[in-house]
Amino acid sequence: MTRATVATIKVKPGQEAQFEAVALKLAAAVNANEPGCLLYTLNKGEEASTYVFMERYKDEDAVKAHRASDHFRTLGREMGAFMDGPPAVLRMTELG
Amino acid sequence: MTRATVATIKVKPGQEAQFEAVALKLAAAVNANEPGCLLYTLNKGEEASTYVFMERYKDEDAVKAHRASDHFRTLGREMGAFMDGPPAVLRMTELG
Repeated sequence: MTRATVATIKVKPGQEAQFEAVALKLAAAVNANEPGCLLYTLNKGEEASTYVFMERYKDEDAVKAHRASDHFRTLGREMGAFMDGPPAVLRMTELG
Repeated sequence: MTRATVATIKVKPGQEAQFEAVALKLAAAVNANEPGCLLYTLNKGEEASTYVFMERYKDEDAVKAHRASDHFRTLGREMGAFMDGPPAVLRMTELG
């Protein structure tokens, strides 16, 4: 069953460029190393300092593999330094 | 520039099945008729009665074509009858 995630992140004002650099590095690492990940994109919202990861995985095992990966742990921690609070994460099942 | 949308919808309790039927019809129509649309999926959130459309378009013109399409107007109105308030729509630009 295809699983999807939308993670909305507020970044500390003035730290957008640093955040984007690490977040794009994460997206590249996911796309290079996670065959079970169908989509992993970084998006900039219209609201200031707001970013959204759109993610699709072929099944729940692929979600777990993502969360357990070295790149997610390491770069996730690096991104955290630029974030204004924890991300708002919506976990979903794709119907069609 | 790739554009993305996340539309979060709360459905009136008990009307999930009717909503899903129309929403899946819309997703199928978009995928069949909009070459500028790169992704259009219906997702069910973990929270009760919550649905999310994940959408990607090759450019802003493709977003406009979607919103002006007959299927979006007609089926969007049909979906509205089952919705508990207006959707929360996040418009974004894809960075990578």
